[in-house]
Amino acid sequence: MQRVKIALCGASGVVGKEVLYCLSKLKFPVDVSSISLFTSSRSAGQKTETPFGEMMFELFELKKVKDFDIVFLSVGGGFSRQYARDLAEQNGLVIDKSSYFRYHKDVPLIIPEINGNEVKGKGLVSSPNCTTSILAMPLYPIYKAFGIKKVIVSTYQSASGAGKAGMDELEVQTRNWATGNPIENDAFVYQLPFNIIPHIDVFQENLYTKEEMKMVWEMRKIFDVSDLKISCTSVRIPTIRAHAESVTIETEKPVTRVGALEVLAKAKGVEIVDDSENNQYPMPLSATGKFDIEVGRIRENEVFGNRGLDFFVCGDQLLRGAALNAVLIAKRALDF
Amino acid sequence: MQRVKIALCGASGVVGKEVLYCLSKLKFPVDVSSISLFTSSRSAGQKTETPFGEMMFELFELKKVKDFDIVFLSVGGGFSRQYARDLAEQNGLVIDKSSYFRYHKDVPLIIPEINGNEVKGKGLVSSPNCTTSILAMPLYPIYKAFGIKKVIVSTYQSASGAGKAGMDELEVQTRNWATGNPIENDAFVYQLPFNIIPHIDVFQENLYTKEEMKMVWEMRKIFDVSDLKISCTSVRIPTIRAHAESVTIETEKPVTRVGALEVLAKAKGVEIVDDSENNQYPMPLSATGKFDIEVGRIRENEVFGNRGLDFFVCGDQLLRGAALNAVLIAKRALDF
Repeated sequence: MQRVKIALCGASGVVGKEVLYCLSKLKFPVDVSSISLFTSSRSAGQKTETPFGEMMFELFELKKVKDFDIVFLSVGGGFSRQYARDLAEQNGLVIDKSSYFRYHKDVPLIIPEINGNEVKGKGLVSSPNCTTSILAMPLYPIYKAFGIKKVIVSTYQSASGAGKAGMDELEVQTRNWATGNPIENDAFVYQLPFNIIPHIDVFQENLYTKEEMKMVWEMRKIFDVSDLKISCTSVRIPTIRAHAESVTIETEKPVTRVGALEVLAKAKGVEIVDDSENNQYPMPLSATGKFDIEVGRIRENEVFGNRGLDFFVCGDQLLRGAALNAVLIAKRALDF
Repeated sequence: MQRVKIALCGASGVVGKEVLYCLSKLKFPVDVSSISLFTSSRSAGQKTETPFGEMMFELFELKKVKDFDIVFLSVGGGFSRQYARDLAEQNGLVIDKSSYFRYHKDVPLIIPEINGNEVKGKGLVSSPNCTTSILAMPLYPIYKAFGIKKVIVSTYQSASGAGKAGMDELEVQTRNWATGNPIENDAFVYQLPFNIIPHIDVFQENLYTKEEMKMVWEMRKIFDVSDLKISCTSVRIPTIRAHAESVTIETEKPVTRVGALEVLAKAKGVEIVDDSENNQYPMPLSATGKFDIEVGRIRENEVFGNRGLDFFVCGDQLLRGAALNAVLIAKRALDF
């Protein structure tokens, strides 16, 4: 197989680093000599250790990013809005992690295991928000088997959702608490250690946050069900990099724990962690660093008669919630 | 008003201390000279600072606890099972914080603002589990105004739910993390800092935990609605002493945010903290130490058509979730 030329915009961020890790871990056929790591002027010129050896960050300029097979955008929505379309014209596949193009009709929003067939070898592709991709992994096989009428989700989202600044702030604040120093916040609206904040991204007119509505808009697009009923409450909690979600669903057909377990056992990218006798259930402690999404606490929910199911999921926000999904989109495009 | 003779069993625990704090804060007509603080042999004989001055812990013996007007039990279910009935025979009102008698038909389970009329001046009375009493405060007025068909709750429960041992363990583990020392756990099944544990109390046959089923059993008894449909997921998180709950309900009658706000504005023991423009919503940081339950993030939930409401609550687990509710039961019994 021909080696692939890869560019990464936003290479100095935490997701950028995880993209390189996933490329290496999945033995992606990368043309190592041509890997280009683009950043803003703040990091440009700095050296960095990567799984492919020491490399240097390079200042992004549109004209520099030409004729790459795959361009990963691990940047903010503003950058994507400005450059993603042009990058897609100048290069092969452009995979955008930002939210900007997720709701554009002509841009596919992809979780490879679900709608990977929409990925063409070229053009602009979007990767979903972290909580969406983490939940979609176990939810889609259940949807295919039993149908879904309603989804109610409450999230337990880690600091990594706010990038390196968020992770650093949680760690610094925690150390300051331990040493009796004042706790100052910048990345988050309030102190995060020993606190939780039910507010991620901006409030919408319907008083859900944008983070909560992303779950609705994106799940509908990925599942291709325009009226899927979902309500989400998104809460930032003091964990580092794995998101958990408490989920209640009403299915179309009757559903049982046993039936759900059978379906999930066959699902790709999902690990069943569900053994109450041995205290096994999804947790940030165990899900961190894993490619698969942990699903457990699966039980029949009598609130919805014989059509209700409760479960708990936990997945690494930087992996399936970001970098891994993007790299798997690239893998799917190459069909290797 | 005649001063009241008070005994407290489990006086050295965190809830015991908060009972004394609440008695003092509410200017309860306590006969200070007769306050008796009973403990196990571990604390007996030790002096302790209280809002009523320095006192001494005394070893519990049934025969010592006679002719008190009110006996507070802030002890485990085993102690209550063994002594509560006898204590109720020997004394006036016995208020039990343990779960042991909560489901006994002849023992009322009381939140004073809801079913305080069931409190008689004498006998044994139970006080509900923390998550139940915190949620019931805003839920009951909504139930009275709009009726309730379904309740779906996910909790964010603090370390204080496991008593002083739990709070200490979270603090010690956090300090050990900050200083690079090993993190050992004893009060909780797993490490709590930077982690969450979807497992509180023992698993039941239906694979809900007992903590989750307490919400169902207790809310039904307090609201006196034997078929109220509730599903709860209880999760321990690294906060100190306030529990939060993410709540979705389906009402009988159509409900709006404005209608719910009107009802909650009149509700006792509830503080509306719901101003998205100014980043005001319930949080452990602000709810800790408060007598009232914070309720906010109130929004119409389209999953249940025009009969759906989402909201978020946060309340001090040691206060409304334990000591305050018990003291308010006593206040109600005295009718002051």
